[in-house]
Amino acid sequence: MSHFPSEHIYRPYEEGLGALRERLLLMGGLAEQRLQAALAALADRNMPGCTEVVRGDEPINRLNLEIDDRSFKLLALRQPMAIDLRAIMSATKINSDLERVGDLAVNIAEAGARYLRHAPLATERDVAAMGDIAREMLHDALDAYMRGDSRLATQVLNRDDEMDALKNDIFRRLLDRMLAAPASVEPALELVLISRHLERVGDHATNIAEDVIFMVSALDVRHHPPASPE
Amino acid sequence: MSHFPSEHIYRPYEEGLGALRERLLLMGGLAEQRLQAALAALADRNMPGCTEVVRGDEPINRLNLEIDDRSFKLLALRQPMAIDLRAIMSATKINSDLERVGDLAVNIAEAGARYLRHAPLATERDVAAMGDIAREMLHDALDAYMRGDSRLATQVLNRDDEMDALKNDIFRRLLDRMLAAPASVEPALELVLISRHLERVGDHATNIAEDVIFMVSALDVRHHPPASPE
Repeated sequence: MSHFPSEHIYRPYEEGLGALRERLLLMGGLAEQRLQAALAALADRNMPGCTEVVRGDEPINRLNLEIDDRSFKLLALRQPMAIDLRAIMSATKINSDLERVGDLAVNIAEAGARYLRHAPLATERDVAAMGDIAREMLHDALDAYMRGDSRLATQVLNRDDEMDALKNDIFRRLLDRMLAAPASVEPALELVLISRHLERVGDHATNIAEDVIFMVSALDVRHHPPASPE
Repeated sequence: MSHFPSEHIYRPYEEGLGALRERLLLMGGLAEQRLQAALAALADRNMPGCTEVVRGDEPINRLNLEIDDRSFKLLALRQPMAIDLRAIMSATKINSDLERVGDLAVNIAEAGARYLRHAPLATERDVAAMGDIAREMLHDALDAYMRGDSRLATQVLNRDDEMDALKNDIFRRLLDRMLAAPASVEPALELVLISRHLERVGDHATNIAEDVIFMVSALDVRHHPPASPE
């Protein structure tokens, strides 16, 4: 059984829940791309790549407005019930989270551009590892949305602790580095900021996963420790 | 003319838009209190005060869930139109923003507790000034919500640049300090983090102000430079 739109609100496609869902997945793809581009520019010491990410948030912002507008019109004109209503409410929330991920890609690229003015620090590798987890969490959350898969969504929730541990480890190591070598204060500070931005990407992926669980099962799992879905 | 609920959906009060609005204002008050408590604990070098903020996010989290649940039920059972629908959609967004402000109060208190282990830095005063602006922005955004005042909401949007300038100034000064005196690396780093958290409180106040403008005038002003309302 599909967890997605019932027939009567599915048509006409261009105005229905199907179109909303398709736009949201498009936005998810853009958010993933921008995060990936920011992390790649950092790894490749590619300064123009950073600038490109910083300047390129117009398409995601446009989609952000369009998705909210579509959600609003669906609510106003269709008066949807139950699962369709949950799908629309989830879409508006996921939309906000994806827009924030786009902003965080900009923040990462900005800090990355400042970081690249200095010699690389070894901890960059751990920050990149954190970036990989953030990307995976986001990808899995969007995949869970696409498939209406609350089991996969729950797995995303369970990675929060992993991110947190990595963030704390990176913070401690960068602090040690700053204390030992004043010349590394500036780049180390930027890596601290980048790791915080990545933590927030993980938070947004978690929010999306929670919305998927709500959409699929009508359970609100926020503010509770994650558990296995049946 | 009131920008708030039309009669038919206003009653019975306990289940209507009025109750939703009242809960949201209660949540706004809690978020303000928690931000204020975190900043006061920092200013007073009050370590137990920090711990109290870190531990005390249960009430705001409970309200967060309750408000979303009320919004959902209003949408499902009342099939509201136009202004009432905008009020409910805005409430769910403002609800998310206030919950994040509560989280940021925790983050500020956590960083504050670590900062207080060290001798105070002069830049603490500028961080406190940034805290004042963040609190004012949040307060004005909530006031604009309460009164349906899009002019006041627009003023909140216009303070974003002020926050940004202060944040950059604080960052530059703390960086200089870290470079000049390795002993101040740890506390300076915590102040950088606190200033970033405060910047985000300002972002959430901005989001709330944008939602107020949407609720009152049906205009979506996000991703556009702020302008004066007529």
